[in-house]
Amino acid sequence: MLIQKITKLYLKGEKDTMIIVGEKINTSLKGVKEAVINRDVDFIQKLAMEQEKNGADYIDVNCGTLINEEVEALPWLVKTVQQVVDKPCCIDSPNPEAMAAALKVHKGKAMINSITGEESRYEQIVPLVKEYKSGIVALTMDDDSGISEDANIRITIGEKLIDRLNKDGIPIEDIYIDPLIQPISTSSNMGIVALDTIKAIKEKYPKVHFMCGLSNVSFGLPKRGLLNYTFLVLCMMAGLDGAILDPGNRQMMAMIVAAEALLNKDNSQ
Amino acid sequence: MLIQKITKLYLKGEKDTMIIVGEKINTSLKGVKEAVINRDVDFIQKLAMEQEKNGADYIDVNCGTLINEEVEALPWLVKTVQQVVDKPCCIDSPNPEAMAAALKVHKGKAMINSITGEESRYEQIVPLVKEYKSGIVALTMDDDSGISEDANIRITIGEKLIDRLNKDGIPIEDIYIDPLIQPISTSSNMGIVALDTIKAIKEKYPKVHFMCGLSNVSFGLPKRGLLNYTFLVLCMMAGLDGAILDPGNRQMMAMIVAAEALLNKDNSQ
Repeated sequence: MLIQKITKLYLKGEKDTMIIVGEKINTSLKGVKEAVINRDVDFIQKLAMEQEKNGADYIDVNCGTLINEEVEALPWLVKTVQQVVDKPCCIDSPNPEAMAAALKVHKGKAMINSITGEESRYEQIVPLVKEYKSGIVALTMDDDSGISEDANIRITIGEKLIDRLNKDGIPIEDIYIDPLIQPISTSSNMGIVALDTIKAIKEKYPKVHFMCGLSNVSFGLPKRGLLNYTFLVLCMMAGLDGAILDPGNRQMMAMIVAAEALLNKDNSQ
Repeated sequence: MLIQKITKLYLKGEKDTMIIVGEKINTSLKGVKEAVINRDVDFIQKLAMEQEKNGADYIDVNCGTLINEEVEALPWLVKTVQQVVDKPCCIDSPNPEAMAAALKVHKGKAMINSITGEESRYEQIVPLVKEYKSGIVALTMDDDSGISEDANIRITIGEKLIDRLNKDGIPIEDIYIDPLIQPISTSSNMGIVALDTIKAIKEKYPKVHFMCGLSNVSFGLPKRGLLNYTFLVLCMMAGLDGAILDPGNRQMMAMIVAAEALLNKDNSQ
C-alpha cells in the first residue's frame, strides 16, 4: 500500500477489506418495527440507502420481533431494500420458513444469519445455504455447551462447524464465524474469550471469515462507544474481518480504515 | 475485574497496568530547549507535575539536542523534576557521560533510555544499568543489521539482547524492549513489523516489558492522532505494556483504559 493509497483511504473515509453488515434495519430498533408493520417503503429504503452510502457491504434485515408475520415481512424487507441498493442482504432470522421465503426473492449472493452447532438448527438451515449458495454466519455454540465461557470449547465448536459445513459442500470462503461477543461487565474475561476464539480459528483456517456484533461487549458499562471501537481494533488484530454495526458511526469506520492501513490490509494484494 | 472496578477506572480515567513515560520534557519540543538553556525551573516543574497528574509512571528527561551542555543539563533536569514529583525519571540520552551524571543525582529506580545491540553502546551503558539497578530500554537494532525492516531479524536481535542482559545480571523485569516503530508511509509493512516483533518476544519472554514511542508510525500521513491511538490498541493486543507519550492526550489515555478493561488487565491479579 503506497502513501497515496493510505491518504486516499483517509480522505474518502473508505474502508478496504473489512466486511461491514449495516445493522439498522432491525425491528428491535426504534421506529423500524412500526415501519415494517405499516410496510413503510420510504422509511426502510432510506435506511438502506444511507447504510450503502456509508460503506455497508451487506444490509442486514431482521424482523424477528414480529414473530407472527415474519414469513411475509422478511421477503418484503428484502425486496424493498434491493429496489434501491445494489448490495446483498444479510438475512437475519430464527425462523427457517421466513428465511426460505426471503432467500427466494433475494437477488445476488445473500448472507444467512445464522447457523449454530445445534443439531436441529443446523439441519434446517444448511439445505438453504446449499440451495442459494449463500454465505453463512456460524455461531460458536451447540447443544452440549450452549454459549460456553471457555474459549477452548468455543474454538472446538467453531472448528467442528467449519469441518462439517465443508463436508456438506459449503466452501470455506462462504463461512463467517461468529465468536459471540459477551459483556465484560458480567464476566471480566469475556473480551479475551472472544479474542482467543478469533485468533485460534483464524490461525487454523486462514480463509474463513468472521462476523459479529460488537456492542454487546460494553453492555452495562459507561463510555460504551469508546469500549466498542477499542474492542473492534483488538478484534481486527486477532483476525476479525467482518462486523455488524452502524456504518454511520464515523468514529468506528475511521478506526477500521486506520487499523486496515496499520495492518497493511489492501484489496489489491 | 468487577463491574465496579471497570466503572471506577472509567470515571477516574485511570489506567492500570500500562507503564506510561511522559514525553514532554524534551529539548526537541517547543519551548523546552529555551527553558533548559535558561535553567527555567518553573517551566520544567510545571511540565513534570502536569504529566504526573495525568498518569505518567516515569518522567522522560531528554536534552540530547543540547550536545555541548548535556553533561550539566541532564542532571539539572533530573533534580529539577524530582524536587516536585514522586515519580522516577526515564533518562534519555545518547551520551554515556551525561547519563552517568544524571543517574548520580537520581532518586529511586530510574529507567535508562537506551541500549542497543551495537557493541560500543552496549559496553558503555550496561555498567550504569548494573551500578544503579535501573530499568533499561533495549532497542531492537545492532551493528550488523542497523534497524532492519525484517521482523525476524528484529526479533533475533531482541532475544539476543535479553539473553545477554540476563547473563550480565540484569533481571528480565528490568528490560523494556523497544520494537522501533517506523512510519507506514515509507513502507506499508512497518506496522506489522513492529507488531510481529512485540508478539514474538512477548511469547518467548512473558515477563519482559516493552517501551516505545508510537507517533512515528503516522509520520507523513493525515489524521495522525487517529492512527497513533489505533496503533496503540493493536500494540497492546500484541503484548505492549509501556509507551512514551503525552499523558495529557485524553483520547490516548482513554483508549488505554478501555483496552486494559477489554483485555482483563488488572494490577490486582
